[in-house]
Amino acid sequence: MSAVQEYIESNKEKFKEELFEILRIPSISTSSAHKQHVGKAADFLVDQLESLDLDRVTRFKTDGNPIVYGELTTDPEKPTVLVYGHYDVQPPDPEDLWDTPPFEPTVRNGDIYARGASDDKGQSFTHVKALESYIKSGTDFPVNIKYIFEGEEEVGSPNLVPFIKEHRELLECDMVLISDTAMFAEDTPSITYGLRGLAYMEVEVIGPNRDLHSGVYGGAVDNPANVLSEMIAQLRDEDGRIQIPGFYDAVKPLTEKEREAYRNLPFDEEEYKDKLGLKALNGEKGYSTLERASARPTLDVNGLWSGYQGEGAKTVLPSKAGAKISMRLVPDQDPKEIAKLFTEHIQSIAPETVTVEVTEHHGGHPSITDLSFYGLKAAGKAFEEVYQKEPLFAREGGSIPIVADFQKVLGAQSILMGFGLNSDAIHSPNEKFALKDFYRGIKTSAKFFELLPEYSE
Amino acid sequence: MSAVQEYIESNKEKFKEELFEILRIPSISTSSAHKQHVGKAADFLVDQLESLDLDRVTRFKTDGNPIVYGELTTDPEKPTVLVYGHYDVQPPDPEDLWDTPPFEPTVRNGDIYARGASDDKGQSFTHVKALESYIKSGTDFPVNIKYIFEGEEEVGSPNLVPFIKEHRELLECDMVLISDTAMFAEDTPSITYGLRGLAYMEVEVIGPNRDLHSGVYGGAVDNPANVLSEMIAQLRDEDGRIQIPGFYDAVKPLTEKEREAYRNLPFDEEEYKDKLGLKALNGEKGYSTLERASARPTLDVNGLWSGYQGEGAKTVLPSKAGAKISMRLVPDQDPKEIAKLFTEHIQSIAPETVTVEVTEHHGGHPSITDLSFYGLKAAGKAFEEVYQKEPLFAREGGSIPIVADFQKVLGAQSILMGFGLNSDAIHSPNEKFALKDFYRGIKTSAKFFELLPEYSE
Repeated sequence: MSAVQEYIESNKEKFKEELFEILRIPSISTSSAHKQHVGKAADFLVDQLESLDLDRVTRFKTDGNPIVYGELTTDPEKPTVLVYGHYDVQPPDPEDLWDTPPFEPTVRNGDIYARGASDDKGQSFTHVKALESYIKSGTDFPVNIKYIFEGEEEVGSPNLVPFIKEHRELLECDMVLISDTAMFAEDTPSITYGLRGLAYMEVEVIGPNRDLHSGVYGGAVDNPANVLSEMIAQLRDEDGRIQIPGFYDAVKPLTEKEREAYRNLPFDEEEYKDKLGLKALNGEKGYSTLERASARPTLDVNGLWSGYQGEGAKTVLPSKAGAKISMRLVPDQDPKEIAKLFTEHIQSIAPETVTVEVTEHHGGHPSITDLSFYGLKAAGKAFEEVYQKEPLFAREGGSIPIVADFQKVLGAQSILMGFGLNSDAIHSPNEKFALKDFYRGIKTSAKFFELLPEYSE
Repeated sequence: MSAVQEYIESNKEKFKEELFEILRIPSISTSSAHKQHVGKAADFLVDQLESLDLDRVTRFKTDGNPIVYGELTTDPEKPTVLVYGHYDVQPPDPEDLWDTPPFEPTVRNGDIYARGASDDKGQSFTHVKALESYIKSGTDFPVNIKYIFEGEEEVGSPNLVPFIKEHRELLECDMVLISDTAMFAEDTPSITYGLRGLAYMEVEVIGPNRDLHSGVYGGAVDNPANVLSEMIAQLRDEDGRIQIPGFYDAVKPLTEKEREAYRNLPFDEEEYKDKLGLKALNGEKGYSTLERASARPTLDVNGLWSGYQGEGAKTVLPSKAGAKISMRLVPDQDPKEIAKLFTEHIQSIAPETVTVEVTEHHGGHPSITDLSFYGLKAAGKAFEEVYQKEPLFAREGGSIPIVADFQKVLGAQSILMGFGLNSDAIHSPNEKFALKDFYRGIKTSAKFFELLPEYSE
């Protein structure tokens, strides 16, 4: 065993304790009330990087939350890897569904339970600990490395693209390494080569100028909650096809080869349903579950509200009704274009009895990485050595819009080296991350850096 | 001027202060947290009645909130009037939309602003003050009177019907007098002879066993919020006809005479829209706005919730979605039957991808009072003398289910002597009641008691 892998083996407890430190910080970026905690999480990463004697560590201010940057150049001839991660997390609500408090990390059955355990504190921290294992074991680091950690991923990274545009030279690299995705299944290492994009909208339907009594006005006045429901219902047909004109225009059809690859992925639909407690699945007709979940665009209601939501009954005809509605996008759909089509369509189907306001939240481009890229191959080999299993290459349904931006601004392809699981319940109560995958992640990262120079030749 | 009317004139300030006392009590029956306040409001009425030297005042315990009873028999040969009112109120939310706090009554531009000002503390209190004006001015009270005030009207009066069934003899009367409705317009006294019934339901659509990430699962799994919207959309067709099989079976069609009467009611549709801030109205095709608002059944979403409702964006595919949906009913629809048809229909249109739970909240029968009843005529004359204007006789869209119950259990018709206005914003922020109508209400009530004996002959 190399000195590096030995260091990892003998420092597991220390790594875990350090991860717990950052998991205890409620760095929720969607809520302005947590601004201070977000800053604290950034400070933690600055301290971590500073302890590794890098050439440079900087806490960059932005218009929003800070960006933590670090770099170590060992040999300009060697490949340069830019590690990207995010230290902000989703809100924990509904908080009463957590078995243990979201910001008190707890290990149960080999899993770390905490908000951010998998997404993305736990996963991105592996690459910091990998470098540490070289430095502290006195081993020369085999490549050049740069780190960029942001605190606004969960709100659409509004300041990251401006930052990478402004710091194009500083961030120059041969590839971007990101661990913010899931493995295909337990003990099944996987490399994600495609991601969906996102257009996230908010719709407000406004009817009468105040809440009305549903007895006095019911029947005479159009009800915004009924109208909103009727509008949402019109957005998809019975076959699950999205009814926004032009929505599918830029969608690249799946090739027969891709569909073949999808059919060959290990997938047990019964088990999938069982785990979700579902009797049946449903979605766009003509596509398999895996295709629908990763290679086809969607339209989902993420939030819905109107009128009285309390205990008992209130006979109110609500003045307003609202919904958050997001669409996952696939190559080559453009989030701005889709947001525009959505807005136009929603306005076109709104009855004259109401006013409809549409707001655009964050969006992101879909992306695909070239399967022949040497970085991807080195990553595959690293996985194979640590997990003793050849990794799968698959597309994933989630969005990491920054992947498309790194491609566009830095000309760098991304390697999505996921150590999480789909069952990690990211964005849900009881988010978790397997302790063994935290450790294997550190080992895989270290192995990847070791293998990269030879693959680059 | 009679001694009674003189007493009213010279005690306006005192009456107002007393009304403010009960308006200050947040007797919200829909929230168990306010149980104590509900009891306090009952105590207030007990004190009020006890100060009038009645034959009997009793605070009856029920399984829920107390029922306050009082009676005064002057001459068994004279008609007996049972005054019904409720001292409980709707919740004040959304509380931030109130210009002044809901439980700090404030007079602005001649209106009393407070939760319960119109519905029903202010209106029902007129009949207590009318009796006081006889007693304290030393005038013989011309009829026999009984009072029954409940504290559960806003939660469907679950204990009132058992109470009147149990106390049939105690409550024996020639008519029921209720002030819990609105006048047709300002300075336009009106007597309501028809009321709609109510069936109030709650629907919960349950999909996956936890909130999911909309990127990872979106497209593969049916989204309960989309499903709920689609189900609600199916409940009405484009003509506003409710699509529940059997829903209209028991509806008595409007006669041509009734429709003629509707057309003759003073109604300015442009003004109606303006006051509500609406560009257009909508409802069941083939019926006028007034017909739709009072003589036709409806289906309204009163509340809607799912997923993330906070600031910003959360990419959640929610595990559940819920709605409160109520239907206003007209003669001879039966609330229990309609609740059953609704439940069956909802279950029949639910896709197999979700589980749907339907709960029945309170319901009530629709009702119609005979236009030739002498009590109605005396009430009309009392209005005419006080308001110097002939009252209109109209049906109203709201529900007072107890009216049907009084008819059924006590064999007594109800006189709905409304002093409120449709613009009183009952069940909404900034509920109000015109101070002048509070005083005219007391005068009309006193005049009604004075006229009743001669009309009964």
